[in-house]
Amino acid sequence: MDAEIMAVGTELLLGDIINTNAQYLAKELALLGIGIYRQTTVGDNEERLKTALRQALKDTEIVITTGGLGPTSDDITKEVSAMVLGKELVLHEPSYEVIKSYFRNNDRAMLNGNQKQAMFPEGSIILDNPNGTAPGCIIKGEDNRFIINLPGPPKEMVPMFENKVKPFLSQFMEHTIISKTLRCIGLGEWDMATRVKDLIDYSENPTVAPYAKDGESILRITAKAKNEEEARNMILPVEEEIRNRIGEYIYGTDEDTLQDVIGRELVANRRSIAIAESVTGGMIASRLLGYEGGMSEVLEEAFITYSNASKVKYLGVNEATLEAYGAVSEETCTEMAEGLYEKTGADVCLVTTGIAGPTGGSEEKPVGLVYIGIGVKGKVTVFKHYFTGGREKIRVRATITALDYLRREILAMEMA
Amino acid sequence: MDAEIMAVGTELLLGDIINTNAQYLAKELALLGIGIYRQTTVGDNEERLKTALRQALKDTEIVITTGGLGPTSDDITKEVSAMVLGKELVLHEPSYEVIKSYFRNNDRAMLNGNQKQAMFPEGSIILDNPNGTAPGCIIKGEDNRFIINLPGPPKEMVPMFENKVKPFLSQFMEHTIISKTLRCIGLGEWDMATRVKDLIDYSENPTVAPYAKDGESILRITAKAKNEEEARNMILPVEEEIRNRIGEYIYGTDEDTLQDVIGRELVANRRSIAIAESVTGGMIASRLLGYEGGMSEVLEEAFITYSNASKVKYLGVNEATLEAYGAVSEETCTEMAEGLYEKTGADVCLVTTGIAGPTGGSEEKPVGLVYIGIGVKGKVTVFKHYFTGGREKIRVRATITALDYLRREILAMEMA
Repeated sequence: MDAEIMAVGTELLLGDIINTNAQYLAKELALLGIGIYRQTTVGDNEERLKTALRQALKDTEIVITTGGLGPTSDDITKEVSAMVLGKELVLHEPSYEVIKSYFRNNDRAMLNGNQKQAMFPEGSIILDNPNGTAPGCIIKGEDNRFIINLPGPPKEMVPMFENKVKPFLSQFMEHTIISKTLRCIGLGEWDMATRVKDLIDYSENPTVAPYAKDGESILRITAKAKNEEEARNMILPVEEEIRNRIGEYIYGTDEDTLQDVIGRELVANRRSIAIAESVTGGMIASRLLGYEGGMSEVLEEAFITYSNASKVKYLGVNEATLEAYGAVSEETCTEMAEGLYEKTGADVCLVTTGIAGPTGGSEEKPVGLVYIGIGVKGKVTVFKHYFTGGREKIRVRATITALDYLRREILAMEMA
Repeated sequence: MDAEIMAVGTELLLGDIINTNAQYLAKELALLGIGIYRQTTVGDNEERLKTALRQALKDTEIVITTGGLGPTSDDITKEVSAMVLGKELVLHEPSYEVIKSYFRNNDRAMLNGNQKQAMFPEGSIILDNPNGTAPGCIIKGEDNRFIINLPGPPKEMVPMFENKVKPFLSQFMEHTIISKTLRCIGLGEWDMATRVKDLIDYSENPTVAPYAKDGESILRITAKAKNEEEARNMILPVEEEIRNRIGEYIYGTDEDTLQDVIGRELVANRRSIAIAESVTGGMIASRLLGYEGGMSEVLEEAFITYSNASKVKYLGVNEATLEAYGAVSEETCTEMAEGLYEKTGADVCLVTTGIAGPTGGSEEKPVGLVYIGIGVKGKVTVFKHYFTGGREKIRVRATITALDYLRREILAMEMA
């Protein structure tokens, strides 16, 4: 069973407002096991809406529209839906009463247009709207095809879908679709695709699909089954197979974030952490402190040691080292991490130094060169990277990479 | 001249990510005077994409696709676009070289899939991509119909549209449309709309439109004229009128960012700055150090003093003050700023302390309470704010607000 999600409204078409309804409906329909054939946005234009609805009814069994149920003459979704399905509009007295009382209670004058909001295609199921004046409706067409008209405002549409439409659609479903997301770092979309390419290309149920997002790569396992439990059991062996191949790169699943995974580990094991950032300039600390659980138990302080002087002053880096090797060097990075440990005594010390550009690069040390140092109880390991992209991208990539090294170190500590 | 905006990608179709590209492109095309006929989202499915492209070419002159230009076998947009227009794919050597060097610089192995990214429909205009590995292209079909393939990530798509596609499309327009954006902070979209509501409601050419984005509010003045100079002259008086009304809130125009405006001022006037963050935990420093010009001349160091102990240790806050008033108080905030000045001697000292939540709030000090302190040569002013939203939103709003106070202080210093 397939559905098309159709947003109606010139304000959406012209980009004045963003269409969050489509995303919500797509996710919900997928969970119901209804395939999403297409998403469309059309303006408040009778001819174009008519064409779009006819096309949608050709390609899919269910067309869910959002918007265009208001009182003004621009609001034509119900009218055109009825036209396309060859139905008359008839007044729905109960809805009319509700609308009238709504205006009484809100001391607002009733407009003629508001009666229009109580008119529905004959024989349709009315979806009352406790959060606004526009009820929705489910209109049955030929050979079990439906047009479902929902209001545009998410705070009206979402509860209406949740409470009325979902139960209605569930009756047609003999299966459900469940997904699990594996989140990776340090592994390009392409690398991942090759390492698990056979699974991506040949798995049918569950399916495996790769995505790249904000410097992370993501693998999504999706299973279709009679019920959620069965679907989860189908996902399990596939996840295990993927973990056997690229497990070390997987930092979390579904809604996990790097800061959550790291934050949880640090707090659970009471590992204190300190950070000293040069090239990333606070980005690592800022990201880590985004951890919803709060880091105050494990993070006391962090430093942004941007200048050479500050590296000497706060981290005890030797001027001689800076002289001989420069601020962006393995030697300086090492002394930064050692100094940070001496200063704070934190179990884990994370430091960065590098060149984000656009200026300051050289033949020998190009823009994008970044050293990441991690000290565990003062024992330091340094990683050297060349990141590409603009200043911001280099800083972001250095941050994500540093956080992933941190994650691996922490896990290693717990295993040790 | 009409266009269809087509997003390609199963992750969009299923609602895993929200389609911000469509909104951006809709706005931009409208500015160019190109009508938007329809927006569509289809999955990585050859047949459905083919159908959608054919329909779009029937209804419109320009089809702009986003997504599906990656290296994996799921990425089929270019291939299907070529098919629909009856073109062969040919290797574009210059793009291939760029991609190869990209992998060299990243110490990563180049694989077949990436060569695919350098293959383009014969005769198409290549749009190189400085922000990623997937170039875009403009493919000309029969009777002046075009398919324009753009990458999916907004960070790649937006500059490509701005720098390559816009100029290309402009040539078909007999008039040009020029916009100027005024960027405001500390002024809600609603406040702005009321203060300049008459301009927004009644201006026709130039038009004035408000937007809200990432805690900033934006006013966009758009003029339609025979040429750019004429358009700019039409914008001038409108901008002046707006500045007369809400000038103090306007921090910059067009592509300006807060960090650019502040960074330029600080560097130009050799004003040194130091930062000590508690609730914002590095976000202010990280944002400021994003300034493309580089801050090393004016910023030596910054501190993230997250714990009470660190506020005492690095900023010399009195334990008695923390005892009596707590870490989140005007008194502690003041001593943080004073201590930061004593420690660094920086011309400007910026500090924050607050409660980002989700836990840690109280009746008297709710989640969202933030104190921002600014010291100029040691003389401290403290601002108290209640921010709403989740942990992340509160930190972001505190950061933007703090940076705007900083901007105002710096300007005041220069005027003094």
